[in-house]
Amino acid sequence: ALALPGVALANADLESKIANPKNWAMQAGDMFNQRYSKLKQINTGNVGKMQVAWTFSTGVLRGHEGSPLVIDGMMYLHTPFPNKVFAMDLDTQKIVWRYEPKQDPSVIAQMCCDTVYRGLAYAEGKIFLQQADSTLVALDAKTGKQIWSAVNGDPKLGAVNTNAPHVFGDKVLTGISGGEWGVRGFVAAYDINSGKLVWKAYSTGPDNEMLIDPDKTVTWTDGKMAPVGKDSSLKTWKGDQWKIGGGTTWGWYSYDKATNTVYYGTGNPSTWNPSQRPGDNKWSMTIMARDMNTGMAKWVYQMTPHDEWDFDGINEMILADIDVKGKPTKALVHFDRNGFGYTLDRVSGELLVAEKYDPKVNWATHVDMKTGRPQVVAKYSTGQNGPDVNTKGVCPAALGSKDQQPASFDPNTKLFYVPTNHVCMDYEPFEVSYVAGQPYVGATLSMFPTPDSHGGMGNFIAWDAGKGKIVQSKPEKFSVWSGALNTAGGLSCFGTLEGYLKCVDAKNINKELYKFKTPSGIIGNVFTYEHKGKQYIGVFSGIGGWAGIGMAAGLEKPTEGLGAVGGYRELADYTQLGGSLTIFALPN
Amino acid sequence: ALALPGVALANADLESKIANPKNWAMQAGDMFNQRYSKLKQINTGNVGKMQVAWTFSTGVLRGHEGSPLVIDGMMYLHTPFPNKVFAMDLDTQKIVWRYEPKQDPSVIAQMCCDTVYRGLAYAEGKIFLQQADSTLVALDAKTGKQIWSAVNGDPKLGAVNTNAPHVFGDKVLTGISGGEWGVRGFVAAYDINSGKLVWKAYSTGPDNEMLIDPDKTVTWTDGKMAPVGKDSSLKTWKGDQWKIGGGTTWGWYSYDKATNTVYYGTGNPSTWNPSQRPGDNKWSMTIMARDMNTGMAKWVYQMTPHDEWDFDGINEMILADIDVKGKPTKALVHFDRNGFGYTLDRVSGELLVAEKYDPKVNWATHVDMKTGRPQVVAKYSTGQNGPDVNTKGVCPAALGSKDQQPASFDPNTKLFYVPTNHVCMDYEPFEVSYVAGQPYVGATLSMFPTPDSHGGMGNFIAWDAGKGKIVQSKPEKFSVWSGALNTAGGLSCFGTLEGYLKCVDAKNINKELYKFKTPSGIIGNVFTYEHKGKQYIGVFSGIGGWAGIGMAAGLEKPTEGLGAVGGYRELADYTQLGGSLTIFALPN
Ligand SMILES: O=C(O)c1cc(C(=O)O)c2c(n1)C(=O)C(=O)c1cc(C(=O)O)[nH]c1-2
Ligand SMILES: O=C(O)c1cc(C(=O)O)c2c(n1)C(=O)C(=O)c1cc(C(=O)O)[nH]c1-2
Repeated sequence: ALALPGVALANADLESKIANPKNWAMQAGDMFNQRYSKLKQINTGNVGKMQVAWTFSTGVLRGHEGSPLVIDGMMYLHTPFPNKVFAMDLDTQKIVWRYEPKQDPSVIAQMCCDTVYRGLAYAEGKIFLQQADSTLVALDAKTGKQIWSAVNGDPKLGAVNTNAPHVFGDKVLTGISGGEWGVRGFVAAYDINSGKLVWKAYSTGPDNEMLIDPDKTVTWTDGKMAPVGKDSSLKTWKGDQWKIGGGTTWGWYSYDKATNTVYYGTGNPSTWNPSQRPGDNKWSMTIMARDMNTGMAKWVYQMTPHDEWDFDGINEMILADIDVKGKPTKALVHFDRNGFGYTLDRVSGELLVAEKYDPKVNWATHVDMKTGRPQVVAKYSTGQNGPDVNTKGVCPAALGSKDQQPASFDPNTKLFYVPTNHVCMDYEPFEVSYVAGQPYVGATLSMFPTPDSHGGMGNFIAWDAGKGKIVQSKPEKFSVWSGALNTAGGLSCFGTLEGYLKCVDAKNINKELYKFKTPSGIIGNVFTYEHKGKQYIGVFSGIGGWAGIGMAAGLEKPTEGLGAVGGYRELADYTQLGGSLTIFALPN
Repeated sequence: ALALPGVALANADLESKIANPKNWAMQAGDMFNQRYSKLKQINTGNVGKMQVAWTFSTGVLRGHEGSPLVIDGMMYLHTPFPNKVFAMDLDTQKIVWRYEPKQDPSVIAQMCCDTVYRGLAYAEGKIFLQQADSTLVALDAKTGKQIWSAVNGDPKLGAVNTNAPHVFGDKVLTGISGGEWGVRGFVAAYDINSGKLVWKAYSTGPDNEMLIDPDKTVTWTDGKMAPVGKDSSLKTWKGDQWKIGGGTTWGWYSYDKATNTVYYGTGNPSTWNPSQRPGDNKWSMTIMARDMNTGMAKWVYQMTPHDEWDFDGINEMILADIDVKGKPTKALVHFDRNGFGYTLDRVSGELLVAEKYDPKVNWATHVDMKTGRPQVVAKYSTGQNGPDVNTKGVCPAALGSKDQQPASFDPNTKLFYVPTNHVCMDYEPFEVSYVAGQPYVGATLSMFPTPDSHGGMGNFIAWDAGKGKIVQSKPEKFSVWSGALNTAGGLSCFGTLEGYLKCVDAKNINKELYKFKTPSGIIGNVFTYEHKGKQYIGVFSGIGGWAGIGMAAGLEKPTEGLGAVGGYRELADYTQLGGSLTIFALPN
């Protein structure tokens, strides 16, 4: 195929920025979603001496997810709604430009899990901003002037955005939120230069709208890959429910240039009352592998058919070349909300490993490796128990053994470092009617720390994805709702909801080498960069997200905030709202 | 006189807390308003190695003035409106209790210069909170439970509060804001145990309401102290204008136990259009010395008779025993908004020194030492130029050569360390009608850096109050809107509007020994304490106040925010909103 000049250039520019470890040019540091840096000035030997170098308040309260980008001495910061963007000169910390979009505040009430935004993307001198109101904007990285904007969804119907846009090749990919508003999920690829929509692939519905080829798109079937066949989605829904059936796409996407494939997951089927949507509800809760040029689905794998617990499948897909059961494998590793850590062959889509990464997961006994289906425990089936019955003690809670907070992969230890939730729930579904633009939930939840465990609500774990085994687990008082970072300095760093940045020894994660209390609880992702010969580690603090929704939105009743308010109430004894960036370095 | 048990106890308790330099038991560290600490673990030799120990976001945006209190291992923090209070255990930084008053948000629009609050007071196991809506509250310091509350003013009429309450003896003293709403100023003393009003002294009006004794209350008259005489205020106002004539009392108060005297200043006369209020407008713009038991005025001194520039006289009175013109003196030192640094005999009230502490002050040539009156330069008289005439190039601007940001006194160098503004203005008065509860301003202002100077908008200066001379001056880009702290370690520390905490050598203030960029611009006051053998220095950041009103309130037009928006517009290139506390210490 004749590569257009744009295609090659886009990759070349962004790839060269990523290749230079002084930059942090993508939200995950690279396109594999590894969250690993080759920098090693700060290392296990000296991290104990690390200090705060400088700080910056963003001027916005509520949950701060994602991280800034650093490109050639300039830092680009984002905020939650109203999604301000700051370009900061790293020599002086002076703000070079600000972009402050005016968005209708009615959008705030359409966001399920706080007004979070997971960050910016960069390519070819442009900064890509995905606003909450679903407007996708390209800004001139030098001046902050708008180059183009595109409307990606209708916030009046609950179609809002929280995901970071991702640039792969000459396209910028974005998703949509609103699974709790009955929004039909999709991803959309826009041309980075013109902002024109190139392709759009729905998560549910007819094959042509899903960009599924019934004969060529394959899935794990009876122990091998086989075509999905005609109407693979439609067949698994009753009537038109798929039109309001969710499967939103608000997570982190990854990309393998070798095969030009993009990977992402789809969210929960709507409503949360499973009785209203008999069937497998395909392709909600699914790992999607698509051709980045055309959007056509190469392979798909549904982790939680007919979800009964809100176990959105959107968590990041980490691409890594590791040994799986002794065999070198081009793997895709995914820690699902449902509590299973999956390892697949990312080229073929074959299911290789599916094991619990929290031993307390109880809603399924295991994943049947032949069918790929979790074996549901009747007692914890909110569908079998039926509407208006409170199914008690389901582990994990709806926010999963892990939510959006991304894990890291360390090529030195070959392990994955996973920030997890250790929370269980009671779940009572009820009949709900769809009203366009109104919440469409249909369940009452309450959450609590996993019983008969260490009493806390989280663990930070080191995971062997080739074997499907926890190598080490570090208990934490609250869920670890922050993205991890590993570095060539032998460190694994993450934030806690109380507000601590912690760096541990990647070889022994129970060894806390550094700990610092940032201004607010951390739900942002740790990142690193080098400037003028000095390595910096940074993280946003700013409590919020689903775990912090009680504080962020000022909710009081335990079952408010989709059930999170009660479970995380104690957070207010440790931290308060406030968005800021804390940057660390070794002393001079 | 028979001291009631309560009286003695109150003093004993608070005095013993103050005497222990490990505490920071009053907003200024002591009752003399010296802002000096005997701690010296952090000193000129090692402050360069100082690090951030921990940080805490308050969850409130907008301007953070004042500082926390530290008493016996517990820290008490306040916020701007809605005036939250946190008690924090310094061992763990865990929040022991929170007090979150519900206040009518309509109060926000009644606050002239941001929703600031200058902090809490402590005495006898109680924390005193002065809410913006004027409610004065006593909380149990152990539990945060409300002990009593008192209504101090009517916010619907613009009578709001920003001042810290001050405990002297068995009373808690508070003031009132609203000079720009035609509020008639007063201070009020409440019993700390019952919350009952003990006395209330107005700034203007009949002698009995002012607690003035025509025969015993004295003032500087023709080079000596003489009784003010009957109706000393009423005589200086046209008709009933004094009833809506301002003279509010939102500054810092000080107290000399030796004579049981409280000192404070009164604010501008209303309106800002001087033609509407011929006369001296007594006792606006006045230093008041009152008996703390009865409230009776001992002596008064009006600095700016018939104000034409909004030079509120509320800045702190610092009590210090220094040599004045070679003679050991119980002095009161005051850096007035009008640009003159005053030294008075605090016992007798005699005027000793009145000199410009910014050489660029141009509205008056000097203070006539016999009459005590500034000699106004006709060109800069907005009254003589008259309404609807724009008087240009007045120095200082309305926010004065210094505003509320308190100076410190260092007993070692015997110098005063003064955070100043270096800003001039154009001022155009106009006729305005009084409407109860509506702004009553009557002038359009614009502000700019002092022309023909260093280009910046501020200086940090060292001042010899015995001689009335600037000893050293350190130029700053923006006004220094933060309270200074001096320590036995030889340091003088202050914050900048860009957000830097700076510590300089008290002997050479141009020697910057430490500099750190806190999350937001600093308008808080630097404080220090010791915990478990370690000295800590801390400061609130959180841009706002009058200088930061453009950012805090989201104003755009240069003349908005009473003229401050244009002058300080560049601030947004350096910092953003966000309230947080940054605590510094030496490394372990
Ligand atoms: O179904 C959806 O569309 C949707 C959207 C979002 C979002 O956009 O933040 C979350 C969720 N679901 C969700 O289930 C969830 O657990 C969640 C956590 C968070 C967060 O940022 O903390 N967002 C979301
Ligand atoms: O006249 C008044 O009642 C009044 C109140 C206040 C206040 O309460 O903050 C200020 C002022 N005036 C004022 O003139 C002024 O310069 C000022 C600055 C500030 C500040 O906190 O930055 N407040 C006030």
